[in-house]
Amino acid sequence: MAIKYELIKKDKYSNARCGVIHTDHGDIPTPIFMPVGTKATVKTMSVEELKEIDAKIILGNTYHLYLRPGMDIMKKAGGLHKFMNWNGPILTDSGGFQVFSLSENRDISEKGVVFRSHIDGSKHLFTPEKSIEIQNDIHSDIMMSFDECIPYPADYKYVEDSVARTVRWAKRGLDYHKANSHKDQSLFGIIQGGMYEDLRKRSVEETCAMDFDGYSLGGLSVGEPKEEMIRLLKYTTPLLPEDKPRYNMGVGSPDYLFESFEAGIDMADCVLPTRIARNGTAITSEGRLVVRNAKYKDDFTPLDHDCDCYTCKNYSRAYIRHLVNVNEILGARLLTYHNLYFLLKLCEDIRKSIMEDRFLDFKKEFYKKYGYES
Amino acid sequence: MAIKYELIKKDKYSNARCGVIHTDHGDIPTPIFMPVGTKATVKTMSVEELKEIDAKIILGNTYHLYLRPGMDIMKKAGGLHKFMNWNGPILTDSGGFQVFSLSENRDISEKGVVFRSHIDGSKHLFTPEKSIEIQNDIHSDIMMSFDECIPYPADYKYVEDSVARTVRWAKRGLDYHKANSHKDQSLFGIIQGGMYEDLRKRSVEETCAMDFDGYSLGGLSVGEPKEEMIRLLKYTTPLLPEDKPRYNMGVGSPDYLFESFEAGIDMADCVLPTRIARNGTAITSEGRLVVRNAKYKDDFTPLDHDCDCYTCKNYSRAYIRHLVNVNEILGARLLTYHNLYFLLKLCEDIRKSIMEDRFLDFKKEFYKKYGYES
Repeated sequence: MAIKYELIKKDKYSNARCGVIHTDHGDIPTPIFMPVGTKATVKTMSVEELKEIDAKIILGNTYHLYLRPGMDIMKKAGGLHKFMNWNGPILTDSGGFQVFSLSENRDISEKGVVFRSHIDGSKHLFTPEKSIEIQNDIHSDIMMSFDECIPYPADYKYVEDSVARTVRWAKRGLDYHKANSHKDQSLFGIIQGGMYEDLRKRSVEETCAMDFDGYSLGGLSVGEPKEEMIRLLKYTTPLLPEDKPRYNMGVGSPDYLFESFEAGIDMADCVLPTRIARNGTAITSEGRLVVRNAKYKDDFTPLDHDCDCYTCKNYSRAYIRHLVNVNEILGARLLTYHNLYFLLKLCEDIRKSIMEDRFLDFKKEFYKKYGYES
Repeated sequence: MAIKYELIKKDKYSNARCGVIHTDHGDIPTPIFMPVGTKATVKTMSVEELKEIDAKIILGNTYHLYLRPGMDIMKKAGGLHKFMNWNGPILTDSGGFQVFSLSENRDISEKGVVFRSHIDGSKHLFTPEKSIEIQNDIHSDIMMSFDECIPYPADYKYVEDSVARTVRWAKRGLDYHKANSHKDQSLFGIIQGGMYEDLRKRSVEETCAMDFDGYSLGGLSVGEPKEEMIRLLKYTTPLLPEDKPRYNMGVGSPDYLFESFEAGIDMADCVLPTRIARNGTAITSEGRLVVRNAKYKDDFTPLDHDCDCYTCKNYSRAYIRHLVNVNEILGARLLTYHNLYFLLKLCEDIRKSIMEDRFLDFKKEFYKKYGYES
């Protein structure tokens, strides 16, 4: 069966909301942060650990999986769930973002995008239909429409044309999906429009006129100032239908999560928590902690004094700093585990605060302790 | 308390034996393979995982820990057990091997060895006393005497002089140990002598005349042909006292373990299983499996069809091959986990075979399936 969104509670004092997305691989309580498993693994983490930290859904990247291991192997494996031994829900992106940000010599036409692999330079064509076909082979629970992620800044005319094309691509992908996808797969439409409110509005109207299972905000958090992101987020999210899940693509810092959820977003993802972990940085209730720094060399307290994750219960800043300093894999593991646990626990606390109509108070408290200006 | 060796059973048809080494951090059944945790971590593994695979004792490397994190931090942490959160027994080497193999511009004298760090070129002096002092700060359960690990090949005169000096160093280290070590620390003497039986014999006589808690064979598996290793091993091991544990340093392939244990060795260690794991190679009951190879890209069976470890129960060769191929940390993790589990399970099976007087039969069966010539 396709996913089903159930709205449970709307916050009295903001647009934040609690819900559940029902999927054939389990229920996803929202709002939720989704760890990114780019190449069929959430970097450094085993599937057991993802269960331990109570990850409700993970991401796979269409572009990366298409190149390696390739769809021949993915099909033989019986899809990504079986390939990586993850039984929970999986969401895949469309490949669009990577085609535009990673590949070389891309060539955009109405048909789709011809690009060269960032690995071996080989030439490939992604079309709206091809993107869904690949996601069918990956057999994710939630798929994304193929879109153009517009860079920042971009002029009005470019964005206007791009939005129109992305809408046409959405329609083609949706048609292909209806004819070809597995019955348990769902498809989201993607809202673009750059930093222009009228184009965002047009994108919403034309995309939501089609029967997608959910809607994503694309092209935010792509280099624009934070105020711009929040402006477009606050403008666009309430325009989306209430009975479908809403996904802000590519945000993962605590403030971006709070702002997104406050605007009515249900889902978010980002490589940030796993990437900064591998660089020796922890996300804690008192702000970011660069444990790589020499000042932690003899600090035998946990990364986060308020955290009860495996890392914080068992290992000290001094030890983790040493591991990072000598490039030991366990350092990246312990930090990744903590950062993901922290964000998932934060989402749990946020859901609880919404249920109790104290989301804005909780946000204020969190910001104060974290060191954000609210 | 110092360690205590208890001999439980001698094999009827070989020199193999079963025993227990009692330590304040737990009992170690022998024969045993000891995973190497060079820089305060068994590469890629968490302490929970070491417990899961039932590691009975792990190694730390004096040279590496002395350089990073350094003894200032190690002392503040309260020793290596606390620093890395491992409650089981720990064995440390003397630093000698690394001083001779890793460092630059070493200068050997009667006093000790002046060397330059392989990390920053800084100058350091290791003496027999200094080596024990560092191991006191690490607070390992079992320490090694500072020795010269003689390279292969080496001429008779050089080895003769070196053995004599290593014996003098052993005495100095033992004196320092008796006056300064923690009460729960034990010290092993190291037998050298290169490929010369009479020098090995002299080394045994002079080292065993001193009151060490156990004895190690050094300078084997340093590049000599396998037959040479086995010749010296078979000659030297039976010369060692029966009431003390015997440790063959630096061996870890299944055949070297079998040969060592057959000669009467109780303990062995090597970076081999963890190092080849990170290069994409598994140790299996049917021989080494280079899972990195393209032929495994669509092989959805486990690494080892007879293994019931976490890796083999949950992940396929195709998936692990993909992870190794795209340099994902989980690949190194899953292979390391399997390789260590395999060797620890092998030791368990070997102990059982000795208890039932069928060690040589078990060895023959294993060699046949593994593909070794016996």
